[in-house]
Amino acid sequence: MKQLEKEHIANWFMSLQDQICNSLEEIDGSAKFEEDQWSRPEGGGGRSRAIKNGPLIEKGGVNFSAVSGPTPEKILAALKLSMADFFATGVSIVLHPQNPWVPIIHMNVRYFEMSNGVWWFGGGIDLTPHYVIEEQARAFHQHLKDICDKHHPDFYFKFKRWADDYFYVKHRSETRGIGGIFFDRLTDKEGRTKEEQWDFVKDVGQTFIPAYSDAVEKVRHKEWSDEDKLWQKIRRGRYVEFNLVHDKGTKFGLDTNGRTESILMSMPPEANWAYEYQPKTDLQRATLEALRKDIDWV
Amino acid sequence: MKQLEKEHIANWFMSLQDQICNSLEEIDGSAKFEEDQWSRPEGGGGRSRAIKNGPLIEKGGVNFSAVSGPTPEKILAALKLSMADFFATGVSIVLHPQNPWVPIIHMNVRYFEMSNGVWWFGGGIDLTPHYVIEEQARAFHQHLKDICDKHHPDFYFKFKRWADDYFYVKHRSETRGIGGIFFDRLTDKEGRTKEEQWDFVKDVGQTFIPAYSDAVEKVRHKEWSDEDKLWQKIRRGRYVEFNLVHDKGTKFGLDTNGRTESILMSMPPEANWAYEYQPKTDLQRATLEALRKDIDWV
Repeated sequence: MKQLEKEHIANWFMSLQDQICNSLEEIDGSAKFEEDQWSRPEGGGGRSRAIKNGPLIEKGGVNFSAVSGPTPEKILAALKLSMADFFATGVSIVLHPQNPWVPIIHMNVRYFEMSNGVWWFGGGIDLTPHYVIEEQARAFHQHLKDICDKHHPDFYFKFKRWADDYFYVKHRSETRGIGGIFFDRLTDKEGRTKEEQWDFVKDVGQTFIPAYSDAVEKVRHKEWSDEDKLWQKIRRGRYVEFNLVHDKGTKFGLDTNGRTESILMSMPPEANWAYEYQPKTDLQRATLEALRKDIDWV
Repeated sequence: MKQLEKEHIANWFMSLQDQICNSLEEIDGSAKFEEDQWSRPEGGGGRSRAIKNGPLIEKGGVNFSAVSGPTPEKILAALKLSMADFFATGVSIVLHPQNPWVPIIHMNVRYFEMSNGVWWFGGGIDLTPHYVIEEQARAFHQHLKDICDKHHPDFYFKFKRWADDYFYVKHRSETRGIGGIFFDRLTDKEGRTKEEQWDFVKDVGQTFIPAYSDAVEKVRHKEWSDEDKLWQKIRRGRYVEFNLVHDKGTKFGLDTNGRTESILMSMPPEANWAYEYQPKTDLQRATLEALRKDIDWV
């Protein structure tokens, strides 16, 4: 069997971006993605695709990139290496809906390799509802568990915990949302081949649309009040806080002079901060209580 | 002369908070501050004061704190010390106006000392107009230059440059606003006594109201369009990015389990992010061009 090559992985990610953009335009029903192609002086580039003001999606991005060059100092230091070239490719998605009843969703699948032979996969999908609805959260986690179980009996438990730990807004003592799965440095240890890990990553990428469709379908036409909209903006503020204060990918991108507009496509439209904002309804209170680690949704 | 004591400095800062809050309520004309008193388990506490929905000030905070206890690891490491107790006191202000023609303002004055005898003052004032108006910027810097020149011929030049460097949104290649002054680790070197440095810091604190009144007066009744309001929200987004990604005070506060609601009183109401947002008017374009270092405003 032919060795799995980085070009193959990048090409597959590129077509994943195409598939997902097409499906999202269908699901949204009206808005269209606009594309920016960019390249970086040190090597490689990307296709950033942004969508806005649709009936479903108020602001979102589905980005592909495949970059290469000398490995950034920070990674070399973390790996205790003096120098090596790197190649990194992946797809990143964040979608902010118009309707406060529809959750924010995030997905990332990525592959990293260095000229010294080191390589790994990473990624994850997680959901950030403005209002936590148990049925929606359970269905979302079930999608992820199904895909994980197909590949390894430990994956769901392990990667769900990892997401709980990673998507944690420490300074607020709350999780970003209801979590999902998160994994990194997935390599060919523990008896799994590179192809097997890649098959898992591909399945994660392909579960995005079914998982999101399910999360959207039942709530997208639900009416909302001004209070719901304000609550959404406050919750979006917390999303901003997580991404700018805690998210390692955002930090790494900004630190290494990544393309700012592509990195910050995760930022919401219309966020709001209010000093000591207190929840006004039982559902808002219940939502805050559900923003914690170690809830078994499935 | 009696040694300048930390209690004296803290008390002076506390009355500065009182004076500034009274003056701001007068300038605003309608909104009133609400106070939260808090204490921290390790020692000390503060008085956070928040104001909202005034005709002038949409959201703001004027916070006082005086905290003490074992010095946080991060400071000890930076100073290459193994252990020492610390005491820190100061006043911090951020005001977000309703009217896009009125600038955002920030001030901080602070004192820090350790049980090993190390001490310093720090602080600064800076202005972030949504639209840069040359006359306003010049008058603001003139206020700061006057106060600096009273104390040392080099202070304005040095601290203005420091502000240009500090309030820089690196990932956007723009300054946060038109700057102002910033200083840190002001101690009794270079022939200046502790009392002289303290006199300077007091003058900085007391120039806040005159400098802000001047910046506000000519523009507060200027009418604005929906486009101006959207621009304001986009600029507020950049303010968030600076504070959460780059501001050392915010980072330090969040890292050391400070009171989150007090630290994040700097966050704006109603911010907005739009992918690849382009300036729509000449003034918006001119504003972006003026957001750079080394402009000599006076």
